[in-house]
Amino acid sequence: MDSWVDGQPADTLSLKDRGLAYGDGLFETIAVRDGQPLLLDRHLLRLAQGCTRLAIASDHELIRSELLAYATALGEGVLKLIVTRGDGLRGYAADPSATGRRILQGNPPVAYPAVHGEQGIRLFPCATRLSRQPMLAGLKHLNRLEQVIARAEWHDTEHAEGLMLDQAGRVIEGVFSNLFLVRDGVLITADLKRCGVAGVMRAELLFQAESLAIPTQITDITLDQLQWADEVFVCNSVYGIWPVRAYAALSWPVGPLTRKLQTIARALLDA
Amino acid sequence: MDSWVDGQPADTLSLKDRGLAYGDGLFETIAVRDGQPLLLDRHLLRLAQGCTRLAIASDHELIRSELLAYATALGEGVLKLIVTRGDGLRGYAADPSATGRRILQGNPPVAYPAVHGEQGIRLFPCATRLSRQPMLAGLKHLNRLEQVIARAEWHDTEHAEGLMLDQAGRVIEGVFSNLFLVRDGVLITADLKRCGVAGVMRAELLFQAESLAIPTQITDITLDQLQWADEVFVCNSVYGIWPVRAYAALSWPVGPLTRKLQTIARALLDA
Repeated sequence: MDSWVDGQPADTLSLKDRGLAYGDGLFETIAVRDGQPLLLDRHLLRLAQGCTRLAIASDHELIRSELLAYATALGEGVLKLIVTRGDGLRGYAADPSATGRRILQGNPPVAYPAVHGEQGIRLFPCATRLSRQPMLAGLKHLNRLEQVIARAEWHDTEHAEGLMLDQAGRVIEGVFSNLFLVRDGVLITADLKRCGVAGVMRAELLFQAESLAIPTQITDITLDQLQWADEVFVCNSVYGIWPVRAYAALSWPVGPLTRKLQTIARALLDA
Repeated sequence: MDSWVDGQPADTLSLKDRGLAYGDGLFETIAVRDGQPLLLDRHLLRLAQGCTRLAIASDHELIRSELLAYATALGEGVLKLIVTRGDGLRGYAADPSATGRRILQGNPPVAYPAVHGEQGIRLFPCATRLSRQPMLAGLKHLNRLEQVIARAEWHDTEHAEGLMLDQAGRVIEGVFSNLFLVRDGVLITADLKRCGVAGVMRAELLFQAESLAIPTQITDITLDQLQWADEVFVCNSVYGIWPVRAYAALSWPVGPLTRKLQTIARALLDA
């Protein structure tokens, strides 16, 4: 369906937009079922936190109401919301009176092979490392060249996702997913204080685990720890959970906690 | 004047452009005098190297001819060229058959205070550190959030530029300039293998110094070395050279080598 820019149907953007010039903005990719944007509160919370950290002025009630209206019109699919700092003058200095520009784009549902969720996937070992930048860590901002070059590292269909390490060799996340491992019943995911995107499904799974009294840990993860994991899976807010069967020479069974959380994620995305 | 997209007058861009979605592209900011784009070969060389490193397909003869035509129409001012990977599908994977999209924007000459060049400037000590990313280091790509947040650190007019260190505390560059120091007659600038933008004026000054038999060094620079410098200056291909008088508690005189190179830079930009 048509995109919207600041609430109006549009298929083009001002060439002065700072989203183009500098990647000066944020985005959310939201699954839509039966006209409902799923995990909406978590998406809006992350967006609001991002706007605060980047000092992008934006009206979050307006964003919510436009998202709801757009999702109703879309019906089924994936909605992408981009918020940029709006038009810029020449140079990096932003106009302090600028308000964020809202862009909504709708796509049909993504047809990932069902086998990814059922039997699990192989992770491609990306050579591209995530850089350390605490001032941007966790944000889903528009500076995504690291993901672009990492995703260009493989073309086969054998690898459904790639694993990205940071510059120090820590295990961080997938190119478009967060990663969890299970060890001795503890659900473990990477600390994202230096780099990485704090995914909405990651936050939801940590919350769900807590309510199920499953112990969780947010910490630095080494390749050694990955090797000794009992279960490994990746997640995002569009496909839910994919068990990870293999990464380079490592392999894991699809475990019971992965299956349990996968059922929960599926229910959230079938809402 | 009107912008051009792929050679045609336009003031808007497709919402599907990967420059907006991911900052998936490169740019050049080129001074134009008497209808001529200055330091054109160096700008085109850096752009071509960037396209190669990011695997963006682009026709560099076409880019050159469009640049020349646009500069003729602009007359005097600053021309910005953006090359993106073009429209994208959903997700980070690029269409291997895509060709780069060319965007040309013209602005009037920038009116920096003459005193910056005459008496020198103060550098603001930016807290924002440049992250280490060898795969993107040197490129003038569209992922510029580090510069945006660094430039937002000061609002006074006392500081004409800010100094950015890397995560290890090395002295790298200004927010929109490269930095040189002079010590015992040697012209020294930062090694940009981990981060930073390899500026066109930086390359030209290194070349000019070589032809004048001025010894040059490209190396890691510590704050200690900055402190003991005889002269410090910043440069870019729009304003030329600004001597640096002060940075935090440090200060320097405007030295003879700075003045000599400033005269050369001015001649290049008055062409």
